[in-house]
Amino acid sequence: MRAKPDALTQAAALLARRLDQLGRVSDEPDRLTRTFLSPAMERANALVGGWMKEAGLAVREDETGNLIGRAESARSGARTFLLGSHLDTVRNAGRFDGPLGVLLPIVALAELRRRGVALPFAVEVLGFSEEEAVRFSGAYLGSKAYTGRLRVGDLDLRDARGNTLRAVIEAHTGTGKKFAPPARVHAPRDVLGYLEVHIEQGPVLESEKLPVGVVSAIACQIRGRLTFRGKAGHAGTTPMRLRRDALAGAAEFVLAAEAFARRQPQLVATVGTISVVAGAANVIPGETVLSLDVRHPLDAKCHEARTRLLALARRIARRRGLTVRWQPTMDHRAVACAPRLTSLLAQSVRAMQGRSLALVSGAGHDAVVMSTLTPVAMLFVRCRGGLSHHPDEYASPADLETALRVVVDFLERLAKRTET
Amino acid sequence: MRAKPDALTQAAALLARRLDQLGRVSDEPDRLTRTFLSPAMERANALVGGWMKEAGLAVREDETGNLIGRAESARSGARTFLLGSHLDTVRNAGRFDGPLGVLLPIVALAELRRRGVALPFAVEVLGFSEEEAVRFSGAYLGSKAYTGRLRVGDLDLRDARGNTLRAVIEAHTGTGKKFAPPARVHAPRDVLGYLEVHIEQGPVLESEKLPVGVVSAIACQIRGRLTFRGKAGHAGTTPMRLRRDALAGAAEFVLAAEAFARRQPQLVATVGTISVVAGAANVIPGETVLSLDVRHPLDAKCHEARTRLLALARRIARRRGLTVRWQPTMDHRAVACAPRLTSLLAQSVRAMQGRSLALVSGAGHDAVVMSTLTPVAMLFVRCRGGLSHHPDEYASPADLETALRVVVDFLERLAKRTET
Repeated sequence: MRAKPDALTQAAALLARRLDQLGRVSDEPDRLTRTFLSPAMERANALVGGWMKEAGLAVREDETGNLIGRAESARSGARTFLLGSHLDTVRNAGRFDGPLGVLLPIVALAELRRRGVALPFAVEVLGFSEEEAVRFSGAYLGSKAYTGRLRVGDLDLRDARGNTLRAVIEAHTGTGKKFAPPARVHAPRDVLGYLEVHIEQGPVLESEKLPVGVVSAIACQIRGRLTFRGKAGHAGTTPMRLRRDALAGAAEFVLAAEAFARRQPQLVATVGTISVVAGAANVIPGETVLSLDVRHPLDAKCHEARTRLLALARRIARRRGLTVRWQPTMDHRAVACAPRLTSLLAQSVRAMQGRSLALVSGAGHDAVVMSTLTPVAMLFVRCRGGLSHHPDEYASPADLETALRVVVDFLERLAKRTET
Repeated sequence: MRAKPDALTQAAALLARRLDQLGRVSDEPDRLTRTFLSPAMERANALVGGWMKEAGLAVREDETGNLIGRAESARSGARTFLLGSHLDTVRNAGRFDGPLGVLLPIVALAELRRRGVALPFAVEVLGFSEEEAVRFSGAYLGSKAYTGRLRVGDLDLRDARGNTLRAVIEAHTGTGKKFAPPARVHAPRDVLGYLEVHIEQGPVLESEKLPVGVVSAIACQIRGRLTFRGKAGHAGTTPMRLRRDALAGAAEFVLAAEAFARRQPQLVATVGTISVVAGAANVIPGETVLSLDVRHPLDAKCHEARTRLLALARRIARRRGLTVRWQPTMDHRAVACAPRLTSLLAQSVRAMQGRSLALVSGAGHDAVVMSTLTPVAMLFVRCRGGLSHHPDEYASPADLETALRVVVDFLERLAKRTET
């Protein structure tokens, strides 16, 4: 019994080193930023693809930059179990959000291979190319493409330089061929399920002193752009009382949204970006665009909050002689994780740390989109201070090892259950 | 007496056509934007330089892109009278702000030349390359270079792409030579004065039903950047009460500045730009930068307003657990126009429209910087609705003609006074 734990301890150390190494693959010199189809994403895919091959996976990349490593099963007609997360990051990111869910399964499968375990299902490890909505305002482009849910309309999204998603993808493929949203890779009946390992990005596991936890549901999440329009004018010559300042209206909304969310338990509302269109220090803002992100564990509460926040925006705009427009970019219902997969995962968690805690995820994950294809389960790993989307994001080597042991154990349990 | 008015009516029509033509020289396809040393600025200089040559001026461009058209005087040892304004624009600009003060003198000098008037002073028409602070946060780069007031420190300013002012200038000159801030073109004793013609950019002339007016002073103007810093975090997992949101603090300041300026007569305070550093829809803003512009006709009131606004910013930051930093980028004392030039200009105005109204300029102008070299005067031209920094900016052909007649008359009066 000594050899097994040692091998997994070493494998967890390898995982930690790979997370560090991948965390240095960035589009910016002094901080970690990898966005959809950027040069750093190409280097990341090459690096992770190499690790997939070492683990015995057949590797391919789809047109949208998704990295797919597949191992067939010896059993004929076997279904496929999917494990993955995303390889893109926010700006100035930590090194765990996303990559952990791709690199951990690779190490887990290498370990099962080393042990000579023949799984009765094929596996695919998925490194999605886009989840964070940094380059384009629509999120989950990678998992949407994989599940056949990318829409023709999505291709008109533009990045900050004005390039459409369509143009960026076509430049990446470089075949001169017109890009059309792909069909789903698998029919639902051919897929067993999807497991995503992710840092918690919140404080619960830390406060409960538990290395890992099992996600019961992912919160409802609504996102969009609010555009306030007033009248641009000269900052030096237009008296205050004659102004219709689009930024002042937007600022009032930022504070109204904050105050509203503070009064509603479990609700979070965030204005993460704001800009004055054609803004300059000496021009009264004529148009201001901001992002709004609203989340709640219950669909009804989340939708109600959206409705009330937009009513607040309209009231502010009316009083100031502005107009306001809402463009939704995301509306994800709360997603319940699959009971069977989740209870199997909880068995593995209990085997490793004695107790399994069920958590609601306030963050969205690729599992949201994957749930439209197949039952999903998620394993959360404790992260220091609950901190994420920040360079200080951190999960300890010991917790990584626990998570790795859970996933290996889970795949073995899933194999047994699939065989019988 | 018939020929003269007809010639000036025709000249005013030519001026209007040139303003239209120059208004189509833009860095952006569907709107007017010309920024410091941009491709459109090079085309603008070529176009305006051609018109200068037609008017008999010797044309040169300095290293910082200032366009200088000079006519010598037959009189030996003659001093130089300067007329000009800027050829750069804000984003999505109108076609009068700046170019009017360059193109009108060219047409006026051509008319004097047609009449065979030999001026007892040399003239220079100046098309400054930068006044609007769009590409770099420091304004008046053109007139500063011309008056020897560009500082070595200014060369470290960076544009949105991260290029320094130094690098942009050196790429433009293309000589491979290191750029150093130039000495002033003229010693003060060699210069008679400076006249700038500009649209009013405010509502006073329109409400007084007067085509033109004479500026008595330019308001004090203070500008800088405020940076609020809090803590970035995940928008989905960080409860509202645990946030230190840099944008919420900035939004509170935007509204506080607006409310403060509304209570102070004649004060204007504008936040024209705002951005979340490394912002994304799903990240709580960790750092927000905004521009603040404060103006008042009296220096003391303007400085007091700055002090009180920064105190407000610090109070907001303290209450929210943020830090705030102020980086001043402009501090221009109120500038009094020169009494002798201004009274001469008022005589010409009275000769053309019966009444001369003295105006305070809430907007800054190249005349602010030029006043450090020589006595300055400014002629304001009525613009529709007081609107400026906007594509609908408009001065009527009839008002352009009045302004042109005033400048021709003024130069003749100045010639007479200089001769005697």
